[in-house]
Amino acid sequence: DLGIKRAEIKQGLREVVACKDAEGKIGLRIRHVNNGLFVALVQKNSPAALAGLRFGDQILQINGQNVAGWDTDKAHKVLKSANGERISFAVRDRPFERIITMQKDSQGYIGFVFKDGQIKSLVKDSSAARNGVLTEHQLIEVNGQNTVGVKDSVISEIIDSSPRTVTITVMPTVIYEHIVKCMGNSIVKKFMDHSIPDL
Amino acid sequence: DLGIKRAEIKQGLREVVACKDAEGKIGLRIRHVNNGLFVALVQKNSPAALAGLRFGDQILQINGQNVAGWDTDKAHKVLKSANGERISFAVRDRPFERIITMQKDSQGYIGFVFKDGQIKSLVKDSSAARNGVLTEHQLIEVNGQNTVGVKDSVISEIIDSSPRTVTITVMPTVIYEHIVKCMGNSIVKKFMDHSIPDL
Repeated sequence: DLGIKRAEIKQGLREVVACKDAEGKIGLRIRHVNNGLFVALVQKNSPAALAGLRFGDQILQINGQNVAGWDTDKAHKVLKSANGERISFAVRDRPFERIITMQKDSQGYIGFVFKDGQIKSLVKDSSAARNGVLTEHQLIEVNGQNTVGVKDSVISEIIDSSPRTVTITVMPTVIYEHIVKCMGNSIVKKFMDHSIPDL
Repeated sequence: DLGIKRAEIKQGLREVVACKDAEGKIGLRIRHVNNGLFVALVQKNSPAALAGLRFGDQILQINGQNVAGWDTDKAHKVLKSANGERISFAVRDRPFERIITMQKDSQGYIGFVFKDGQIKSLVKDSSAARNGVLTEHQLIEVNGQNTVGVKDSVISEIIDSSPRTVTITVMPTVIYEHIVKCMGNSIVKKFMDHSIPDL
């Protein structure tokens, strides 16, 4: 199933290499949470997006320097002053997230209600309920496609147009709010890469 | 590596079957969090421990009934009134937890400081820092062995006696506190199964 493959959270670390674009940008915003650095924004068509960075990825190293304990400002300064031709990152795949795979029922429903991307309630005995979907969790991806900052009506369309098997990626809302804190809603809506990831 | 194998968080759902002991107990305490039910206590040598239930497991069904939306009381009542000869559970393996594998340095250190089982700080450039260990996270297991409610000095001994490769299982403290809420510290210390799990 393509959705599961696109959503899959891989164990272990990976190296990501990106360069800056003609304007000297890589299209990445970072937030520090619990002494770690996390990807908070990946801009559409940016070097960061092309390199495969995703919302929620934990950055462990930038150009070989361990970033544990760095704050958001320090991370952005280091990126700004880095040589634009090659910036390397050691990355752990979305550690705060997990995926849940469900099957639509005969009417096409999977069985949860969400508002502003947050799961609010479950339909009794639905696929969502049977598979352990939790409330107070944020919808981060549908079939691996990022939905952070996407309007609820558009998320619903993405779910409606999914095949019968639907895989969602979720994160506890309390942690999600730490990562998106200080970013304007309009920035996320306007700039975040919401494309379907390559495999 | 045995520690990684014992710690590994498996995808998908599993069925667990347990029966009550001679006193009619299964040795399990459950907490509801975000409309889901989670294992909060597994007693040493109890039917729940023998059946392989672990702290943090999400229970999705009890005897075929979907439990989404049940509260703690309802769960305990259903267990109490259940036929003691066979109780079946559908379980998702510890969804709020993740594992991090580290290597001890030449002095035997992995590089984080903890208090009351909570990770408080990271040693610069240590294996913990390089592998993305986070503060405000709770140590749930070391090499798959449960450490919830274990004294810090004993957790340190478990880490000291580990082979060079150490795998820890962690959970954000904010979620951990929901799960252990309302259980006396002494109950957890006294009754929790802290044995090394079978493979």
